[in-house]
Amino acid sequence: MAIMTDDDLPLTGRDVRLACRANRWSASTAGLAPGCTQANLVVLPADVAGEFMLFCQRNQKPCPVLAVTAPGEVGLPQLGADIDLRTDLPGYRVWRHGALVAEPDDLAAYWRDDLVAFVIGCSYTFETALRNAGIGLRHVEQGTEVPMYRTAIDCVPAGRFHGRLVVSMRPLKPRDAIRAVQITSRYPAVHGAPVHIGLPGSIGIEDLDRPDYGMKAAIRPDELPVFWACGVTPQSVLAASRLPFAITHRPGRMLVLDVADEQYAIM
Amino acid sequence: MAIMTDDDLPLTGRDVRLACRANRWSASTAGLAPGCTQANLVVLPADVAGEFMLFCQRNQKPCPVLAVTAPGEVGLPQLGADIDLRTDLPGYRVWRHGALVAEPDDLAAYWRDDLVAFVIGCSYTFETALRNAGIGLRHVEQGTEVPMYRTAIDCVPAGRFHGRLVVSMRPLKPRDAIRAVQITSRYPAVHGAPVHIGLPGSIGIEDLDRPDYGMKAAIRPDELPVFWACGVTPQSVLAASRLPFAITHRPGRMLVLDVADEQYAIM
Repeated sequence: MAIMTDDDLPLTGRDVRLACRANRWSASTAGLAPGCTQANLVVLPADVAGEFMLFCQRNQKPCPVLAVTAPGEVGLPQLGADIDLRTDLPGYRVWRHGALVAEPDDLAAYWRDDLVAFVIGCSYTFETALRNAGIGLRHVEQGTEVPMYRTAIDCVPAGRFHGRLVVSMRPLKPRDAIRAVQITSRYPAVHGAPVHIGLPGSIGIEDLDRPDYGMKAAIRPDELPVFWACGVTPQSVLAASRLPFAITHRPGRMLVLDVADEQYAIM
Repeated sequence: MAIMTDDDLPLTGRDVRLACRANRWSASTAGLAPGCTQANLVVLPADVAGEFMLFCQRNQKPCPVLAVTAPGEVGLPQLGADIDLRTDLPGYRVWRHGALVAEPDDLAAYWRDDLVAFVIGCSYTFETALRNAGIGLRHVEQGTEVPMYRTAIDCVPAGRFHGRLVVSMRPLKPRDAIRAVQITSRYPAVHGAPVHIGLPGSIGIEDLDRPDYGMKAAIRPDELPVFWACGVTPQSVLAASRLPFAITHRPGRMLVLDVADEQYAIM
């Protein structure tokens, strides 16, 4: 499956969104529309949206909020032309009382006028900057999803929302790890600097070969595992908090924006 | 031994220099004149000064040059009032053909009109910023000199100058190591970001308990060793290069400037 443009130009964020809307794309968005920001989605009923906003404020590293809709709104004009949040991602997850109950391609059967959408930064944004700096990413080389782990670190709770921090892991040579701290520090809106380096046991990760999400990434003897706070944290939190109803994106199937990755750099 | 000021105010860089000049101080300068930049010293005959300048340009992480004198000059007005490089450090080393031949308290017996002095940044400067950020430094807690190691990494040679990179090591918890990368990246003039984290064997350090300079610093199980390029590198290089004549400071006995540490931050 491939998304084609009429004129063979590189895909834009809008090309990807329209392909998803027309059911011409339902796979991972990794590598699509290079340079366009990709984002996590969390959709909640308005009556818990305030509490989730507070949860994000207290846990900004895993949950950096890029935008929030008004109840019932499906567009986000500041992030992309003509966005329809109900159709423009390749895949969704529907959660009831903390359990994953469906993985639909669109939200036609689930949308309600009281729903509020949170768009949350994604590490794909800083991966562009890492690759531009010549830093190889194992999961990209392998053609797999980045490995993600539920840590022993509790997020700061807010109202009904509580749960463990999820981190993504990239194996890097020490000098690339140092460079990666510098580069990702420029991007606080998309998880920023790593939260941990080198001692996975001390954050409750027992076996790097068994990620909780994504796929295993081989670590070589001259590399350290480097961990970033991950936008999948809200999915772990929704499960732990047993919210009556919530919708998220399917991991790896992101909302692709018109905003350039570099626009989220602070310097 | 203590340096006293008339009015019990904190010491200035000039107080320290004058105490050294009057032979009232010959010990380490660590912790003296808080907030004042301390620097490494390398003194060479003018006929090799150009080559050493090139060596520093090619090896900026260990050899960040803050200032260079004209031949025979003993002052550096841009770095401190009334500096006399022949007397204002607590201790010196004299090198002949790569061998350490004397450790005088002043240079009265060695100074020549063809000598050029290089003032090179020192990690004491960024240690101030680390401590201000609440990051504890083991060698400071222990009251010992920072441990330093001759690595297997060759400096880029220039003319007669060649030799191995020397690094200083500070044990840090992973989250402090990440913060330390951010903080020290602000100080490229004083060695900047670390050159290595976590895998000492891969840079040729076999036993962390046996530093080549300074003293052992205990590493706890929840800590990583973090390595910065070190201003003692020129002493390793002078020994390896067997220069006919050179003078340096004694490790730990630095030139204390009037310039504030924070003036070397780039942002």
